Amino acid sequence: MKQGKFIVFEGGEGSGKSTILEMIYEFLLEEGIDCIKTREPGGIRISENIRSIILDKENTEMDSKTEALLYAAARRQHLVEKVIPELKSNKIVLCDRFIFSSLAYQGYAREIGVNEIFEINKFAVGEYMPDLNILFDVSPEVGLSRINKNKDREVNRLDLEKIDFHNKVREGYHKLVEENKENFHVINAEKSIEEVFNEVKNVILKFIK
Amino acid sequence: MKQGKFIVFEGGEGSGKSTILEMIYEFLLEEGIDCIKTREPGGIRISENIRSIILDKENTEMDSKTEALLYAAARRQHLVEKVIPELKSNKIVLCDRFIFSSLAYQGYAREIGVNEIFEINKFAVGEYMPDLNILFDVSPEVGLSRINKNKDREVNRLDLEKIDFHNKVREGYHKLVEENKENFHVINAEKSIEEVFNEVKNVILKFIK
Repeated sequence: MKQGKFIVFEGGEGSGKSTILEMIYEFLLEEGIDCIKTREPGGIRISENIRSIILDKENTEMDSKTEALLYAAARRQHLVEKVIPELKSNKIVLCDRFIFSSLAYQGYAREIGVNEIFEINKFAVGEYMPDLNILFDVSPEVGLSRINKNKDREVNRLDLEKIDFHNKVREGYHKLVEENKENFHVINAEKSIEEVFNEVKNVILKFIK
Repeated sequence: MKQGKFIVFEGGEGSGKSTILEMIYEFLLEEGIDCIKTREPGGIRISENIRSIILDKENTEMDSKTEALLYAAARRQHLVEKVIPELKSNKIVLCDRFIFSSLAYQGYAREIGVNEIFEINKFAVGEYMPDLNILFDVSPEVGLSRINKNKDREVNRLDLEKIDFHNKVREGYHKLVEENKENFHVINAEKSIEEVFNEVKNVILKFIK
């Protein structure tokens, strides 16, 4: 049975990946290409319920491994209910973040261990690894300044801590790309939105041909 | 740092393990041995919240792998908040079911795969594998008849399906014992409650000496 393509947009904060994903989605629809866009938990009831536990501000005592298992559980259910049916009906699925976000953020930057996070996510994902990951590569300085640009304030201690953390996330992504070159396309996301859009568009059109 | 002992009671339905656990707990307290009893989710808020998602009757569409990840997440949080602190203060922790229940029920009987279920549980449990597992071995016929004995009805189709399933659970436990002999004590739980209690008592007293 011919299947659709599972294309994931990855990257740090302020990389522009969600904006570009919207633009690509609209573009593909205009081209008459059958596609959907999603991001976890994606309106899937069980996944939304799991996310509420993760995000509940009262759950301050949550262990980082508990959290990682909950993310993997929410991922599994979103995959089964939303992504797999669309792939089976031969659609392009554009997904904002997936397994490599967990590896970069939890495995690498939060130091739970990339191999361990991979194991539980491999269990959750099974044969449905992304067909293509597009990494929107941006320095934390540029990314965070994009996010903060309307906030009109100076950089504080928390921002500096954030920059350290996001540098680790970026480093994590780069290591993952090295080990999974055939599944990644890396884009310099510091370019203008038009340039990034055009590059992503060309990569995807070539990929789904 | 000297640590307590983590003793887990395992077995199928109607094996009497929970009854015996209560008796052992009372006995150890009378002997002046510092111990606690627990079973997941054990009143731990996050674990209870996770269990509510699993048990919610509206969640009929829940995938079996999602469920397995949720069980592992609830296990992790119960372990971190309830079991580990007690072990660190040198107590005996008596726990009704733990990792081998997931392996026998989900991995083996539900056929998700023992190795896969082990991987996600190993992630959840880390170095805190049980020091001793006591398997209450009972045939499903005896176990289920104990549970049903006050229901005054004949065996129906559902019971027969149940017996098939519980035979697989028992088979799963037996395989796990073979592969983990040094961590298991197997008890013939078809004997009288007094005989079973005395055997468990002696095993535990010898083990914690």
